[in-house]
Amino acid sequence: MIEIEATGRTTVLVCVTCRTPNDAPDAPRPGLLLAEATADAARDDSSIRVQRVQCLGNCSRGPSAAIRREQAWTYVFGGLDPLRDGPSLVTGARLLTSAVDGLMPWRGRPEPLKRGLIARIPPLDFRDDADVEPA
Amino acid sequence: MIEIEATGRTTVLVCVTCRTPNDAPDAPRPGLLLAEATADAARDDSSIRVQRVQCLGNCSRGPSAAIRREQAWTYVFGGLDPLRDGPSLVTGARLLTSAVDGLMPWRGRPEPLKRGLIARIPPLDFRDDADVEPA
Repeated sequence: MIEIEATGRTTVLVCVTCRTPNDAPDAPRPGLLLAEATADAARDDSSIRVQRVQCLGNCSRGPSAAIRREQAWTYVFGGLDPLRDGPSLVTGARLLTSAVDGLMPWRGRPEPLKRGLIARIPPLDFRDDADVEPA
Repeated sequence: MIEIEATGRTTVLVCVTCRTPNDAPDAPRPGLLLAEATADAARDDSSIRVQRVQCLGNCSRGPSAAIRREQAWTYVFGGLDPLRDGPSLVTGARLLTSAVDGLMPWRGRPEPLKRGLIARIPPLDFRDDADVEPA
């Protein structure tokens, strides 16, 4: 069972509903396997919380997970491998925890969190950057 | 120019960098046009804030925007039409503002915000729903 606390810890939200068209209706959901693998990988790290969520809306490109921290950007990932990417998500969570600018660095980011980026959302205190030239 | 305030208003974040491969390098960015159209559509509604952001990470399926409110779910949309979907985003923002459960209702949601859903992220105070059966 995963502990729930209202803290500023980095959170990994794992969709437990995701499955592929080839999955048998009674087969374990890949998303559920990913949630368990992520919780296992984060078990000894009190800085990371793992939460299960029924749907992240990324149904066509699952399995899906999001990583977020207050006052940092939120990242949504898709196409994750339930048997391999739990530790990748925990690595990403640690990168976000240590990011002083609130952005998950590209350097050191596991490959599945590079090619699997679905979206990112700025923190609530984000300031309009209309005057900044696009990169 | 769009006013910036740290309030609990519903915010529409519009990516101003999005463009398609066919766009000339010096052509107006579709995302920028969408940001302007959204700001125009929200001009007389003080409950909605429009912010510009350089990248929402949805580069392959832009133009992109996100709608969020504190203590509500955040929604990311893609494949938006810069000439048509500013008012759609404002309609979606109003739906989220009036949603007592923090979820943008499907009913009444403009079509571009149905077929263009990229992802949704629960609010910070979201509680793990591991014990809830998938729908």
